[in-house]
Amino acid sequence: MEKIVVDIYGADGGPEIVIRGTADAIKKIGIFPVLVGYADLIKKVMTEKGISADAYEIIDTDDFISNNEPATCVFGGRETSSLVLAYNRLKTDDTCVAMISSGNTGAMLVGSICRLGLLPTIKFPALCSALPCAGDKLLTLVDCGAVIDCTALDFVRFAKMGNVFSRCCCGIENPRVGIMSVGREDGKGNALTLEAFKLIKELPLNFVGNLEGSDMVSGYADVIVTDGFSGNILLKNTEATGKKAMEIVSKIAKDYPELAEEINKELFKTFDFNSQGAATFLGTKKIVVKMHGSANENTVLASVEQIIRLQKANFLNEMSKALSN
Amino acid sequence: MEKIVVDIYGADGGPEIVIRGTADAIKKIGIFPVLVGYADLIKKVMTEKGISADAYEIIDTDDFISNNEPATCVFGGRETSSLVLAYNRLKTDDTCVAMISSGNTGAMLVGSICRLGLLPTIKFPALCSALPCAGDKLLTLVDCGAVIDCTALDFVRFAKMGNVFSRCCCGIENPRVGIMSVGREDGKGNALTLEAFKLIKELPLNFVGNLEGSDMVSGYADVIVTDGFSGNILLKNTEATGKKAMEIVSKIAKDYPELAEEINKELFKTFDFNSQGAATFLGTKKIVVKMHGSANENTVLASVEQIIRLQKANFLNEMSKALSN
Repeated sequence: MEKIVVDIYGADGGPEIVIRGTADAIKKIGIFPVLVGYADLIKKVMTEKGISADAYEIIDTDDFISNNEPATCVFGGRETSSLVLAYNRLKTDDTCVAMISSGNTGAMLVGSICRLGLLPTIKFPALCSALPCAGDKLLTLVDCGAVIDCTALDFVRFAKMGNVFSRCCCGIENPRVGIMSVGREDGKGNALTLEAFKLIKELPLNFVGNLEGSDMVSGYADVIVTDGFSGNILLKNTEATGKKAMEIVSKIAKDYPELAEEINKELFKTFDFNSQGAATFLGTKKIVVKMHGSANENTVLASVEQIIRLQKANFLNEMSKALSN
Repeated sequence: MEKIVVDIYGADGGPEIVIRGTADAIKKIGIFPVLVGYADLIKKVMTEKGISADAYEIIDTDDFISNNEPATCVFGGRETSSLVLAYNRLKTDDTCVAMISSGNTGAMLVGSICRLGLLPTIKFPALCSALPCAGDKLLTLVDCGAVIDCTALDFVRFAKMGNVFSRCCCGIENPRVGIMSVGREDGKGNALTLEAFKLIKELPLNFVGNLEGSDMVSGYADVIVTDGFSGNILLKNTEATGKKAMEIVSKIAKDYPELAEEINKELFKTFDFNSQGAATFLGTKKIVVKMHGSANENTVLASVEQIIRLQKANFLNEMSKALSN
């Protein structure tokens, strides 16, 4: 049974949501969680969900890092915060395979580096999402916002790591890897992507070349490699455009509430990335999953499912192998 | 009556579409077009549309620049091509106020520089679109793909020019100008946007600070300033995501064809940028409008309407004033 560290703080809806989602994961998937947070609250919610006290462990703290604190706060301080306690446990306990948090993204980035540690050759982790917007298969977008100012060598690492993630998390045997650009033709792009193109085409990957903005939904590639700035705006734009479409459906089909709901359920499934899981750090020594602030019970469940898939596919070993080539 | 040069070539649907759209503009808006293209075809289509020969002028040529030709082909050659003939006429005829083409974007960029000329202080034109995706008011996105590798000073020019365009084309008195970034907080962004932020906040503009990907549809800003790489991927992503939503509507609501059509008409109006007009070059000595390859009759009409709005608002004078400050 997988032991997973869960930081209960950071979700907009409150820690109860994360605890309830974890309880669901115990019941449905059979994990053993180490919950980091206020013990009385955890026990209360777990009892309400019918989970016995021997089905989980608690690291008791009511201190947490807010979104307003600087990312660097976890460098040498905030020892009693849930995030630092979670990282410390993940690092030191060989039986813990992963952690989940919807905390401060910057603090999680710094925590991944200085509290957990990175795989060889990695200086900075990337943030990667598996997105349902491109069709039946999940699309891997890397980087989603961790490395805002990139070099071409960052793109090379993103391509290697995205390829492993797509295989292990999305079950795609030989992922089609492309570089986000302003058109599919060779030679299209900015100085950075053109340089990255030359390097990535020499890698032993199923490289499909340049992509364009529409390829977030076209299904033309399985892995989109891009800098964290572009990845972040693409992610937020796709999600927001999908939600805008849902508003239009609700308005125009207001006299057909059941049909509107059915359409919007499908739009939600396609364009609400939060409902499908969470972002995963790539390049970290153990699996770290970052849920969005608007995470709900299903996000926790989806995150745990993703961790299980990655574990089954021997993700960290595959990643180490890919990075050493 | 405004005299507008129309290059009939470049639309995927063939030159007839552009001629028919121009005929509609004569009837509905009352312009006098100078059509550049094969005279026999122009006369035939105009006659079919009931337009008399004295309602337009022709510059006869059946030569045109394809999308596969390098942008630089217009530097010193291609004298008989429709695009070069159009630029030459626009430059030398004081009574011509603007031109429209759906030709090769790169060739139009180079043509705008070396065949037409730019306003003082401008070294490279920007490409700007007025988009319906953000709500009731048209959103100005600059740059949409002309200046792929930008400096912070390019951002300053985009902000000034986008502000004038928003006032003159979209009728927004005091446009809210923002910089596309990875979050709305000050301090978010890449090295380029952070540098641009410092410069733009000193300008006499209604500066709302940083934006994020969702602000393409949120209505939080009237002008989005961004590099041509990010602008291009945002434009294509928003449009493609909207079309994907339309596919989902058609599939789920297949038993309610009328309702599906009504929803998709609204989605199309919101997310199909081609149907709403075209991109405008900023910084050129006269107005140059670039239609998408998939332009149809309505695109021509919308482009002409946009030119008329810009003319009425004294666009070029306003632009010169803004750039000299």
